[in-house]
Amino acid sequence: MATVSVATIRAMSRAFEDFPAGTRLVSSKYPITAAAIMNFAREFDPQLFHLDLKAAGKTLFGGLAASGWHTAAVSMRLFVDTMDVAGGIIGMGVDELKWPNAVRPGDELRVEIEIVEARHSKSRPGYGIIRIRNVTKNQRDEVVQSFMASAILPARQEVKPPA
Amino acid sequence: MATVSVATIRAMSRAFEDFPAGTRLVSSKYPITAAAIMNFAREFDPQLFHLDLKAAGKTLFGGLAASGWHTAAVSMRLFVDTMDVAGGIIGMGVDELKWPNAVRPGDELRVEIEIVEARHSKSRPGYGIIRIRNVTKNQRDEVVQSFMASAILPARQEVKPPA
Repeated sequence: MATVSVATIRAMSRAFEDFPAGTRLVSSKYPITAAAIMNFAREFDPQLFHLDLKAAGKTLFGGLAASGWHTAAVSMRLFVDTMDVAGGIIGMGVDELKWPNAVRPGDELRVEIEIVEARHSKSRPGYGIIRIRNVTKNQRDEVVQSFMASAILPARQEVKPPA
Repeated sequence: MATVSVATIRAMSRAFEDFPAGTRLVSSKYPITAAAIMNFAREFDPQLFHLDLKAAGKTLFGGLAASGWHTAAVSMRLFVDTMDVAGGIIGMGVDELKWPNAVRPGDELRVEIEIVEARHSKSRPGYGIIRIRNVTKNQRDEVVQSFMASAILPARQEVKPPA
């Protein structure tokens, strides 16, 4: 990577212009194992229902469930891979982040992305800002996570939007 | 853990009643290394500015920076350790999640927690719902993450709130 200039990467890669408002994308699938749930939890969310198959049965979750922040991290991986913008996408803010159903061992997650708004950045020429609705579903089409977010990414054209 | 009943854990542990509205808590400190930033990114957010010390310098971040979702995961760890509720705290929703400053290698993070609201659950007797403001700061007191969240946790008393 370090031998290819950012300008070259930008020219070759998908960029802001490839994601007009209304664009819908679906990620590939990501399998969730009990080991992955417990590994993430040991480091970042060491609570009974994320750590211990047996004890988790007696909690509000009624069984081992992934940390919401693990689901968020997996969803980010699927988002990054699906958007495929080599210049990078930086999240600016997230709202309405919800985890309406638990993620269980054996689940297979995918992310559905909708670009709800797209505009050139006023303060950073050469960049665009997109508003995204991100919904993560399991193999039974149940929503396990949803949120709205704003993100900034490189544009091919430097367009000064009207002030 | 599996040999101690959840009822016993609940009786011994901090619970809903220990976190009235107005409670403020500060976590211990969590050091962020370049290796941790890159490890998290390889698995969950494989983008140039989270992966490659040299190439990151030419991006919008101007140097290696942690994924926002890594900061979120570390903040959850600090939150869980600080709240210290053995029965567990489950996040229900997050709003206004922002990352106003980048997290860099060598940073030391802490979380400041404010309980802004606390009420017994209507639908689940024996549980309470708290509304939290969570702010993560670095060693220079700069805010690197903030959000509002609702979470459910075990209560000692089963109180039916007025309908």
